[in-house]
Order: sequence, then C-alpha cells, then structure tokens
Amino acid sequence: MDFAELQDVIERTYGTRDHERGVAATVAWLAEEVGELAQAVRKGSREQQLHEFGDVVAWVATLANQQGIDLNEAIQRFARGCPKCEAIPCAC
Amino acid sequence: MDFAELQDVIERTYGTRDHERGVAATVAWLAEEVGELAQAVRKGSREQQLHEFGDVVAWVATLANQQGIDLNEAIQRFARGCPKCEAIPCAC
Repeated sequence: MDFAELQDVIERTYGTRDHERGVAATVAWLAEEVGELAQAVRKGSREQQLHEFGDVVAWVATLANQQGIDLNEAIQRFARGCPKCEAIPCAC
Repeated sequence: MDFAELQDVIERTYGTRDHERGVAATVAWLAEEVGELAQAVRKGSREQQLHEFGDVVAWVATLANQQGIDLNEAIQRFARGCPKCEAIPCAC
C-alpha cells in the first residue's frame, strides 16, 4: 500500500467512529501507540515491533484523515533529501 | 513516494548520522515531533500541520530503518480492514 491507499482503507475501516470521538482522542491514542512502539524497540521481538510500527502509522493516517491532510503531500519535503540543505546525505 | 521510497531516501539522507546517534536518540526525536504534531493539530495552520505530519512520518521511517523494519510490511495488517474483526467498517 502507498500512503493514499492506507489513508483510504483506514477511513473506510475506522472513519465514522474516529470522527465521532474527535481529534483529541486520536492524539491521545497516537501518543499511547508511540509509547508502545518505544517499548517494542527497546525490548520487543521483531513481530512486536512490526505490530507497533503498523499501529503508529495507522494512527498517524487516522489523524491525517481527520485533518484533511494528504500524507503523500506531507512527505514530499523529503523527496529530494534534507528539506533544509537539499543534500543527500544531509550536510546541515 | 511509497513507504519503500521514503525509507530509502531517509536512509540515504540521514542514515549514517542516525545510526551513530543510536536508537534511543531517534525515539526521543520521534516523541518530540509527535508533540509538535499535537500542537499543530490543536492550533496550527494547514502548512504547519503538513510540516509536522511529514516530520513524524520521516522519524518513524528513521526508526524503522534502524530496526530493519519494512513499513510496508508493518501496515499490511490493515490492508483488508480491521486486523481484529477483519471487517470494513470495523465491527469490533
């Protein structure tokens, strides 16, 4: 899946419920999932890490959907390397 | 860009420096960027939100690179809807 496909399936799967709960609830869920990812990276198995990376990206997609943000547009800043120095590798 | 292209450009742009700083530093940066995203969602402009969404996704990609995780594999759990109930929309 690319970012558009992910945002689409997340919207169709969770969109109604997420919009009812509101943005603040999504920010809280995202923070919780980032904590779980931090733990998985510190002491989890590869399977646990895969799970938590997936959850974090899915919650970022949910929040982007709620805000009307296209994640593919958001990451274009990095398409040609560092957004600040415009070099690969970064020379900042 | 898809997830593979993003992870590749992030690795080429920041990989050497990120690997030198280590995983804990990346987790700290990611936490900081999630905080900035939370603020942008609460009171930022659309441009600021785009910026912060991009930064969060980029730091997730950095952490995934450091852990040898393929983000496209990580999000496959959501490809057919909710990973728990396997329904679209989620019926959990």
